[in-house]
Amino acid sequence: MRWLLRTMALGIGYPALMIVMIGVVALAARLLQVTLFYAPPAPEHMEQKQRYLASLPAVDPASAPSFVVILFDDLGWGDLSSQGNRLIATPRIDRAAAEGLRMSHFYSASSVCTPSRAALLSGRFPPRTATDRHVYFPRQMALGLLRRVLGAPNELPRDEILIPEVLGAAGYATGMIGKWHLGGIPGHRPSDFGFQSWYGVLWSNDMVPLHLYRDDVIVQRDARPEWWFGERDEERPLEPRGVDQSTLTERYTAEAIAFLEENRERPFFLYLAHTFPHVPHYASRGQAGESQGGVYGDVVEDLDHSTGAILDALARLGLEERTLVMITSDNGADYGGSPGALRGRKGETYEGGQRVPMILRWPNRVAAGESDAMAMNTDLFPTMLSLAGLTLPEDRIVDGRDLSGVLAKDETSPHEYLYYFPLLASRPEAVRDARFKYLLATGDPGRDRPHLTRIDADLEAHDLRQKHPEVARRLGAALDTKRQEIAENRRGWR
Amino acid sequence: MRWLLRTMALGIGYPALMIVMIGVVALAARLLQVTLFYAPPAPEHMEQKQRYLASLPAVDPASAPSFVVILFDDLGWGDLSSQGNRLIATPRIDRAAAEGLRMSHFYSASSVCTPSRAALLSGRFPPRTATDRHVYFPRQMALGLLRRVLGAPNELPRDEILIPEVLGAAGYATGMIGKWHLGGIPGHRPSDFGFQSWYGVLWSNDMVPLHLYRDDVIVQRDARPEWWFGERDEERPLEPRGVDQSTLTERYTAEAIAFLEENRERPFFLYLAHTFPHVPHYASRGQAGESQGGVYGDVVEDLDHSTGAILDALARLGLEERTLVMITSDNGADYGGSPGALRGRKGETYEGGQRVPMILRWPNRVAAGESDAMAMNTDLFPTMLSLAGLTLPEDRIVDGRDLSGVLAKDETSPHEYLYYFPLLASRPEAVRDARFKYLLATGDPGRDRPHLTRIDADLEAHDLRQKHPEVARRLGAALDTKRQEIAENRRGWR
Repeated sequence: MRWLLRTMALGIGYPALMIVMIGVVALAARLLQVTLFYAPPAPEHMEQKQRYLASLPAVDPASAPSFVVILFDDLGWGDLSSQGNRLIATPRIDRAAAEGLRMSHFYSASSVCTPSRAALLSGRFPPRTATDRHVYFPRQMALGLLRRVLGAPNELPRDEILIPEVLGAAGYATGMIGKWHLGGIPGHRPSDFGFQSWYGVLWSNDMVPLHLYRDDVIVQRDARPEWWFGERDEERPLEPRGVDQSTLTERYTAEAIAFLEENRERPFFLYLAHTFPHVPHYASRGQAGESQGGVYGDVVEDLDHSTGAILDALARLGLEERTLVMITSDNGADYGGSPGALRGRKGETYEGGQRVPMILRWPNRVAAGESDAMAMNTDLFPTMLSLAGLTLPEDRIVDGRDLSGVLAKDETSPHEYLYYFPLLASRPEAVRDARFKYLLATGDPGRDRPHLTRIDADLEAHDLRQKHPEVARRLGAALDTKRQEIAENRRGWR
Repeated sequence: MRWLLRTMALGIGYPALMIVMIGVVALAARLLQVTLFYAPPAPEHMEQKQRYLASLPAVDPASAPSFVVILFDDLGWGDLSSQGNRLIATPRIDRAAAEGLRMSHFYSASSVCTPSRAALLSGRFPPRTATDRHVYFPRQMALGLLRRVLGAPNELPRDEILIPEVLGAAGYATGMIGKWHLGGIPGHRPSDFGFQSWYGVLWSNDMVPLHLYRDDVIVQRDARPEWWFGERDEERPLEPRGVDQSTLTERYTAEAIAFLEENRERPFFLYLAHTFPHVPHYASRGQAGESQGGVYGDVVEDLDHSTGAILDALARLGLEERTLVMITSDNGADYGGSPGALRGRKGETYEGGQRVPMILRWPNRVAAGESDAMAMNTDLFPTMLSLAGLTLPEDRIVDGRDLSGVLAKDETSPHEYLYYFPLLASRPEAVRDARFKYLLATGDPGRDRPHLTRIDADLEAHDLRQKHPEVARRLGAALDTKRQEIAENRRGWR
């Protein structure tokens, strides 16, 4: 009996003691502002990166195209009126969609912010960029601390090569406005990855602190003391002390237009990564209460106004015909947004988690229309480099494909397969081709098993493995190959 | 230290001991086939029920309408081709939909089997019929045992009044074919609730044992020894020993046609409650592999053939014009079915869990068309009684409303509000009117809060509480009133 008592006590006692000790270390680290488990990049990859950037030729300023990426945060497949929304009015984005190329099978590389943004800017899958463990968190927050204690990466490795670095090295003006979400500590901010100027926030708007920066200087400090769990949504708003979120979209827009004006004479790359419609929702003063779609609709309509203002500025500055504008979202709809008729939402490898609107507008260069060529935001890196006449780095795998043929000549997709990465894993868990999608596991409790569906017809309802065993085998094999390839070379070095 | 050890040991030891003791009692009960926690009905309600049934007049056999209810199990909003499914072909049901009245805002009273069936047959909400604690389970299964041990009701109370009892008392022939799921012990089977004949199974097809009965006699015994957790789906099929599920739809159909032939001279009520497309899926031999919708599509197409055969039989027997056929489902799509563009699935109070197809076909009596009048399967009881000229019982609340005005004269819905009951609660958690739906809680982890949506426009995406506070207040008040009313008189006695 005594032995039993002792065993039981130890069984509880040891884990409890360990938790307390980890807590003490973590708290000390937080108080001392020490970054736990920071993995510096290997010198050889930094060298290869520098060598590649130094090797890039300067582009011809007269002919090199400019690029504007307008990235919404959590905007769902069904959140625009041109995508079927009946409550939210987005006439300006809809007009861009009508004038440009609308891709109906375009995906974010992940169903959450950080890995999707890393993929967009690097052309690489989440495991390559150490963004395969959900999203990064400020170290002041409980989850940021937990990531530190667990040794999970919490900033983009310095050896990654991002679009602004490449284009900047080739003579582009590069600017970021909006939300970064790829690291908060010095050395891992937008200015450290090639953005010559930046204005915005390092984190999602539900995270605290949400300081507003211009370049690396805080221009408005978030003084809210409630840093531990952040501000999840408008249900429990924190007392605003610092950044008034209802002004963010307007400020971003004004900064974006100023950037365009300032750089009208050179090729430029503007990355406008909006804070909204991520939770919590704060509509601008003029818009609040206007949308039939409620507060959510208000913030989306704010984004519509912003997009219209930027397109107007491009026209006014005579930049339209030399600027490719790309309008998309970093992942599918969160619970308050609309995935349209897609299955699933943010955080899931079902279509609703990753299929997003994508509008490419480039008067006289990209014909108006719709393309069902499947593509992913990893494709932006090789596509923009290709359009700028720049070669890809050779020391690493770039997972994206060049879409310039799809844009210019309405070619079919350069992808035979697209891969879907889940939230907390270093390998893809789903794959699709032009007709079928194969999930290794649906993630549904009790039904976490393979699922083959006709992606062209039924939006992931009926499992067709018995109907099409050869397709299940083929897609399963493609997925296995990619999983194996990534397991053997996670960061994709060559 | 010693005190600490002892406290910790006791803290674990006592609950563990209690669990073991409950387990011993439960196992003994199972072995002895004793029904734990069986609540017999109160004599006064049994008496009132008998008095009501005895008071009913005999209907005129020449003019009384006959009724056929075809109830699918888990068929989703988007599982029929007439509901937009592009892989599953249901031409026979679609034809009935084209010839009859298709209700586009029709609901099951619950998002799972047992409470929905109780509601359909009694006209009463789940708490009234003691079906507000998920579904019933065979006592041989772990969950059935758990229900017993926890004292959760596991059979429909005898004092409930079901359609077959009422119609039977008034001179109708009444027959049930298919799945019961309202209790398994003697005294709570179809024959105990007014079905003069029945053929089928007492339980869902993932439950064991799945004996096949004719009236109260087992005609095919399920001899599978794996009774403890049942057979969840086709991923892990149990060795069939007894009922071959791939023959069920055909057998039900043949029995249904035999019932029609046998009772062609009298008014009748046929309740054909199919086993499919509930998991596990077993297609008939002729259909297996035929549907583009895979195994799921095969079982739905089996149901389409069955429905066609029954409609053909009605025509052949000259019964079409005196028979109202109602085709619907007991709840929304399970994970392998399609909710169309609705949010949510089986088990949820989102639309996808409860909005179901409803087709009412009655040549020359119900005009072809579509009605957006909101209605619920609780309405079948008062509607059928009204059409048969019979009065409702007065000793109890009947929650359903008479739809005969909607059928005959395309009137608007008799409901000002519809209420949604969740899986494990005795009170409604959502309410809708013609335009808005108000959920008290979405059930989404971390977002379990009120949600007001424009049910006529956006399928439950955007929360509109701030946009329409007066609507939120009004619907919230209606919900509160109903919750209060049910809390004070759960079973709804008058």
